[in-house]
Amino acid sequence: MTREQLFEQILQKKSYLCVGLDTDPRKLPQHLLDAEDPVFEFNRQIIEATADLCVAYKPNIAFYEAQGPQGWVSLEKTLKAIPDNIFTIADAKRGDIGNTSELYARAFFETMQFDSITVAPYMGADSVKPFLVQDGKWVILLALTSNAGSQDFQMLRLEDGNEEYLFEQVLRSSAGWATPDQMMYVVGATQAEYVQRVRRLVPEHFLLVPGVGAQGGSLEEISRLGMNRQCGLLVNATRSIIYASSGPDFAEKARAEALAMQQEMEALLEELIKK
Amino acid sequence: MTREQLFEQILQKKSYLCVGLDTDPRKLPQHLLDAEDPVFEFNRQIIEATADLCVAYKPNIAFYEAQGPQGWVSLEKTLKAIPDNIFTIADAKRGDIGNTSELYARAFFETMQFDSITVAPYMGADSVKPFLVQDGKWVILLALTSNAGSQDFQMLRLEDGNEEYLFEQVLRSSAGWATPDQMMYVVGATQAEYVQRVRRLVPEHFLLVPGVGAQGGSLEEISRLGMNRQCGLLVNATRSIIYASSGPDFAEKARAEALAMQQEMEALLEELIKK
Repeated sequence: MTREQLFEQILQKKSYLCVGLDTDPRKLPQHLLDAEDPVFEFNRQIIEATADLCVAYKPNIAFYEAQGPQGWVSLEKTLKAIPDNIFTIADAKRGDIGNTSELYARAFFETMQFDSITVAPYMGADSVKPFLVQDGKWVILLALTSNAGSQDFQMLRLEDGNEEYLFEQVLRSSAGWATPDQMMYVVGATQAEYVQRVRRLVPEHFLLVPGVGAQGGSLEEISRLGMNRQCGLLVNATRSIIYASSGPDFAEKARAEALAMQQEMEALLEELIKK
Repeated sequence: MTREQLFEQILQKKSYLCVGLDTDPRKLPQHLLDAEDPVFEFNRQIIEATADLCVAYKPNIAFYEAQGPQGWVSLEKTLKAIPDNIFTIADAKRGDIGNTSELYARAFFETMQFDSITVAPYMGADSVKPFLVQDGKWVILLALTSNAGSQDFQMLRLEDGNEEYLFEQVLRSSAGWATPDQMMYVVGATQAEYVQRVRRLVPEHFLLVPGVGAQGGSLEEISRLGMNRQCGLLVNATRSIIYASSGPDFAEKARAEALAMQQEMEALLEELIKK
């Protein structure tokens, strides 16, 4: 999916919501456990209940990998159940030497048909570039993550005379590896105070924003600080939506949560929609 | 496997060789393509031909993931074909927020029975600690990798008054997260000039050393600089061994390459063996 197509979807749906599909078999509603593939059945109903309210789905690959081969079957079926006009993110945090990243790119862009994959920057340019295979396929690079551990290395000051943090150098360097049509960045909603520093370096790029909801980030604040003229934001919510209820009404409750976020986003998008 | 058990194996086999199992279905010898599971059959024969010469096997997970669910079946069968006294490394470069790293730990330590997994440090302590589940299960943290991209971020100087590089801060911080009985570090053989800086910070830890062979690092040099009183090195070779021949004699040729490395290692281990 291209950046223009993504922006179109955002305007159409008045939403920049990404729903995380971190489906833990141990957290499934009882009544689904008899289904042939309970994880897929859970995802299918979540997708059916939220597809008109979000512009992206983000399966967290760990949750499928933990199930062994069956997990990958559930993941592939889930991917096929997502409407084509919705952006798909393999939240995989991959990244390795060139010949290996090429294989990961094949795994997520060819074996599976994801639009994008999250990638870790530590190994540098030649670990990221193999994912930049074609227009419409995206790298979403970790910049400033939402977790406490983001302080350990991402926030280290560099001896560069600019008092820059490591995450800023990651943005600065990687922005030269691909255009805003092939690269996005992960910036946690819990990092609102640094979003302006992020936008100074990457004004045009889309940001994938985790950390709203369960992790405590504010949708309003991150949107006010991070939105650009093409929205430039995909705000993810996972647990607050997919685990809104553990009962037979899980999909209905998930929709209610997604709808509340979409409505807040519609208000925050007002100026872009007017244009 | 504990550090003592690993050192025992090294002394017994007079080898600290790790064989990488980056098995690419496109590179398999013709005569294996009719096998029920060609990737597994290739691995099985490589393992049979080299098990007495190496102390570790390192499947690169990307190569299996790229095959979809069938790849995970091949991987699980490969893992079962590895003798119990050989250390197994899931070269996965994982790392995510806590609840997700827990799932990856479950995938590689429980769903599969790997002894260790390679982990990327960028997301910090709470992305790494969930892998430290029990003695005998290891985190192998990326410190200074063997690829050109290691220059991009790992070699950035920090504003800490010590003129330290980022990879040194990664060693310094992470050495506090686990003992040398649960943590190892990836240090590329192509980085020999920095191995003394690594050893100053982590004298006791095992180092997993890629980059000998195809990538051009020197076994003799990295061993002279990096070996400690418990050897402290696992030197990996992949392409030079498993792709030594693309013919029916691939296993035989792989053994010859592994034997040559084992013999060089035996000489380099001489002083430790004497004790």
